[in-house]
Amino acid sequence: MPGPPDPRDLVERARAGEQLAVARLISMVENSGPQLREVSAALSPHTGRAHVVGLTGSPGVGKSTSTSALVTELRGRGRRVGVLAVDPSSPFSGGALLGDRVRMGEHAGDDGVFIRSMATRGHLGGLSWATPQALRVLDAAGCDVVLVETVGVGQSEVEIVGLADSTVVLLAPGMGDGIQAAKAGILEIGDVFVVNKADREGARRTVRELRNMLHLRTPDGPEPWEPPVLSTVASRSEGIDAVADALQEHLAWAEKSGERARRRRERARREIEAIGMEQVRARMERVRGGDALDTLTARVLEGGLDPWAAADELLEQSG
Amino acid sequence: MPGPPDPRDLVERARAGEQLAVARLISMVENSGPQLREVSAALSPHTGRAHVVGLTGSPGVGKSTSTSALVTELRGRGRRVGVLAVDPSSPFSGGALLGDRVRMGEHAGDDGVFIRSMATRGHLGGLSWATPQALRVLDAAGCDVVLVETVGVGQSEVEIVGLADSTVVLLAPGMGDGIQAAKAGILEIGDVFVVNKADREGARRTVRELRNMLHLRTPDGPEPWEPPVLSTVASRSEGIDAVADALQEHLAWAEKSGERARRRRERARREIEAIGMEQVRARMERVRGGDALDTLTARVLEGGLDPWAAADELLEQSG
Repeated sequence: MPGPPDPRDLVERARAGEQLAVARLISMVENSGPQLREVSAALSPHTGRAHVVGLTGSPGVGKSTSTSALVTELRGRGRRVGVLAVDPSSPFSGGALLGDRVRMGEHAGDDGVFIRSMATRGHLGGLSWATPQALRVLDAAGCDVVLVETVGVGQSEVEIVGLADSTVVLLAPGMGDGIQAAKAGILEIGDVFVVNKADREGARRTVRELRNMLHLRTPDGPEPWEPPVLSTVASRSEGIDAVADALQEHLAWAEKSGERARRRRERARREIEAIGMEQVRARMERVRGGDALDTLTARVLEGGLDPWAAADELLEQSG
Repeated sequence: MPGPPDPRDLVERARAGEQLAVARLISMVENSGPQLREVSAALSPHTGRAHVVGLTGSPGVGKSTSTSALVTELRGRGRRVGVLAVDPSSPFSGGALLGDRVRMGEHAGDDGVFIRSMATRGHLGGLSWATPQALRVLDAAGCDVVLVETVGVGQSEVEIVGLADSTVVLLAPGMGDGIQAAKAGILEIGDVFVVNKADREGARRTVRELRNMLHLRTPDGPEPWEPPVLSTVASRSEGIDAVADALQEHLAWAEKSGERARRRRERARREIEAIGMEQVRARMERVRGGDALDTLTARVLEGGLDPWAAADELLEQSG
């Protein structure tokens, strides 16, 4: 049996467009294998180029279809494209529900497209920690654009806004009425808004309401970005070219205004913090083979110890 | 000006049903004030009684309306009820979008109901860390049931499944078709499924599809819980009594099967870990007044250092 591959060699092969090398590298970072640090160091000199685009929206708005259509559009423009589909996984199985093939079958065989489903493993900080590592692999592999598709609204949006250079918020007619959009906190995080399934009833009303709500946003800086509200029918690729154009314009604005630098800095900060915290979490779980945490947990449940005192003891012991 | 209140005194007053004392305690834990540890220790002997119920679902399914109707139902049964509404907040403003008064106005003046909106502050582990503390306050204050309402699907569901004794997943007709529900990973986490807005078209189909999908779930244990799929029109309080009954039945099952003990243990474990990680995060940010993290971030962005090496250095310096 051959020994483990040399990470630097794998990175070179990934940069040359070898799909298997990319897949292997992502697995190595995703599973926190023993070579993780070597891989991370080998990636570093090649990162920081890709346009990182977040795509988000509630279930049912057509995220996967839109992602796929956008991949086709960007490929037509000669860009190398990476896709990270962050699936919520069962907290019980730990696995992603839909495989890469099922989701993005039409791009199979195109060696300018790298697609990966990320399982969010359910441990604390899961998204924060593993996704940026996979993103670094795709970036280093020479992807011009990396699309990060996240499911759902809520916590994950707050993550993605710190993660992406540009964020696309997808809505569908009837699901995007004003108060719901505001509740979900999506108005502040979108750089480009897309009302998909625009051939359905109520699409124009959703677009109008969204525009009205966006006017209430506090402008950020002297030359603020005004998020466009676009309409698409992703299943027929209608309007996708305009989405690609808007992303290009947003990137140009973000470069000029310093917003991209700000987000990249914040992304790197949070990545470092998340890695540090994950290290500490792993260390806390290892204290006396996990017995320390079990014992402290039992004492908290009996009411004899409060969780803060328990955390102090655990940190003390894991230091 | 009077000095800061004595936490033990506040806890006694909260247990006597004083709304202001409850509010004050939650603020003290939510803002990680200097008395947090004292508060936490004072709460400990009184916790562990409340039935913790998670309510979740996509925006637009009627979560707030359902929560409010369930509060009314439980009050009618003579239970003391706490509500924690975990709002996604703008990552920019840091504030909750809708105030407590707007959401639950009809329960104002009922001193058997404690309602609190939690802002998810967008920092790593925000939900994991602050919500359990507020929950402990409501539990110690003598709430028989604490409803934790979270917005959205994705990450936050994985959190809530570790948090709640019983989890209610809300859907609405047309939003809950099979594949979407599976994608959102909600099938595994629900103990009780509720199709709200059951007077709308397609409600029966959604119920049927959901039941079919649930039959595919892997049974957990020898006498597994079979999650009921109920129909409600929360705005007219229709079907809410059945939801309250189902929650009562689930609690009885969870007590008997050991599932409640398992979840409480997991909840306490994760709470301890989350507190420990938050401590470390705060420590990492404080190294040389934040300069250390800034410097390391800049080095990562220049490509000279990879994030793992940066995290190692930071942990070293914050130890």
